[in-house]
Amino acid sequence: MENRRSFVKKSLIGMAGISLSANALSPYLLAKNKKKLGVALVGLGYYSTDLLAPALQLTNSCYLSGIVTGTPEKAEKWKRKYNIPDNNIYNYQNFDSIANNPDIDIVYVVLPTSMHAEFTIRAANAGKHVWCEKPMAVTELECQKMINACNENKVKLSIGYRMQHEPNTRKIINYRNNNTFGAINLVQSAAGYYDGRTDHWKFDKEMGGGAMYDMGVYPLNACRYVTGEEPISVMAQQFTNRPDIFNEVDETTLFQLEFPSGALANCSASFGMKVNNLQVTCTNGWYKLNPFQAYSGIRGSASNGDILDDKIRIKQ
Amino acid sequence: MENRRSFVKKSLIGMAGISLSANALSPYLLAKNKKKLGVALVGLGYYSTDLLAPALQLTNSCYLSGIVTGTPEKAEKWKRKYNIPDNNIYNYQNFDSIANNPDIDIVYVVLPTSMHAEFTIRAANAGKHVWCEKPMAVTELECQKMINACNENKVKLSIGYRMQHEPNTRKIINYRNNNTFGAINLVQSAAGYYDGRTDHWKFDKEMGGGAMYDMGVYPLNACRYVTGEEPISVMAQQFTNRPDIFNEVDETTLFQLEFPSGALANCSASFGMKVNNLQVTCTNGWYKLNPFQAYSGIRGSASNGDILDDKIRIKQ
Repeated sequence: MENRRSFVKKSLIGMAGISLSANALSPYLLAKNKKKLGVALVGLGYYSTDLLAPALQLTNSCYLSGIVTGTPEKAEKWKRKYNIPDNNIYNYQNFDSIANNPDIDIVYVVLPTSMHAEFTIRAANAGKHVWCEKPMAVTELECQKMINACNENKVKLSIGYRMQHEPNTRKIINYRNNNTFGAINLVQSAAGYYDGRTDHWKFDKEMGGGAMYDMGVYPLNACRYVTGEEPISVMAQQFTNRPDIFNEVDETTLFQLEFPSGALANCSASFGMKVNNLQVTCTNGWYKLNPFQAYSGIRGSASNGDILDDKIRIKQ
Repeated sequence: MENRRSFVKKSLIGMAGISLSANALSPYLLAKNKKKLGVALVGLGYYSTDLLAPALQLTNSCYLSGIVTGTPEKAEKWKRKYNIPDNNIYNYQNFDSIANNPDIDIVYVVLPTSMHAEFTIRAANAGKHVWCEKPMAVTELECQKMINACNENKVKLSIGYRMQHEPNTRKIINYRNNNTFGAINLVQSAAGYYDGRTDHWKFDKEMGGGAMYDMGVYPLNACRYVTGEEPISVMAQQFTNRPDIFNEVDETTLFQLEFPSGALANCSASFGMKVNNLQVTCTNGWYKLNPFQAYSGIRGSASNGDILDDKIRIKQ
């Protein structure tokens, strides 16, 4: 297994000398005669390789037009596999010249969390729209800087959180919109997987690692889209059963939220267990999804007899 | 609706002058020729009226032989309904004379929680075995005094927590005993009902009220019987949406437990919502019950395909 941590640390050192140039919105952006928008993936790890690139072969409105990687071998492999022109292949040093490339409409940042802010801002300054993987960034301040950069450059910013587009999830959001089951009393949710690796940037605090950042966004966002509210109080507890590995970041976080309406949430996020459930208790009924955030096969039921199972699958 | 709080407070005042006499173990107790053990219910509220008395008509090894109540009208009604002899009807003043009654083998304490310790100790001192409703008492010290009194009088003490006898619950306890799904990672559980009353001893702190005492024992005990362990750390948060009613005790408590094996629990107990679920995540699978502590119809499933649904019902 590649040592991602040292790879990324070297890349960060390599980027230190690059100044950020603020470019005007590219005149090529969103040209009317383009059938599909071109997407450049930044960072070719598991998620880009196994999920995003295959999915971009199936999309109607956008396509994989470019890549940004620090690993020449990956560039060569992707170039052949997806017929990517040499001009659309960037490394972290020449990334900012993407501003001049009309094939790239959108930069998709799929890097470790600590790099999200920098590459989102650089992409925005290059006049490109930005998709940035979840979690958005490590701090609220970084998030605000990303939003500001995109606003200033008049480009769109979207975070790669997908559940709000999933049909069953949309259905339960509509339960709330339609007040189907009355007031929401309690959201119980847990998301986790067993990460058996011993060295990965997700175990590194400086790189934005930890179960809460990585998996916690799912129950956290579930609470937000289920209630339609923002929490007014937050409590959390962190645990680890593998202190030798999780000596910087949380292996498991339990957290509780209180919402203005009085709804409560009791949630879990973990790198130490395979768990994936969402259960919502309302005054006049309940609904649940299990799993609620898998890449395919969201399933569940509701107290009114609804079966939540659209069997949406991504062909790979 | 009867004002239970003032009733019980008056009863407490009435009992203040009664001294506790320590009797030897009744010679009538557990006589070999008795087919069924006689049970005296102490406190004739909803639980005794709607659940215990009907259930005691169906039991093979014990029967309803006596009652203890501070309300003469209730005594009269129960006497007629269940053919209870006058000699087996007590009030809180003459309760201790139950020591001399060979028809009463077991005293079942179904009083507000703050009275559990006193009546358990008085029953033990009267030489009677004791069943005491859950929660056992308000403090650990009270619990220890109850245990001591029963030990000293050589009578048995049992707490009226029933789930460990329920077939589906026994099945999941056996999952743990047989290590069916490997190590237990996370227990998620919630138990609650909407209590629409505005005045009840369960809302009174001095009487041992509060959602955690009343409903919290279900997820708490579920965590204990699911893991087979005692928690090594406990965290909790209390909330209320009806501060005018819940101004002394918790309407909702969320609580988290950590166990020696590394298992975690994330639980909820409430008087403000109807909720009843238990979900256990293990290294090699999961199982869940929903409801997990209803009076009938415990239902669930497991990742190995087991259907947990014995449809055990108490005829009423």
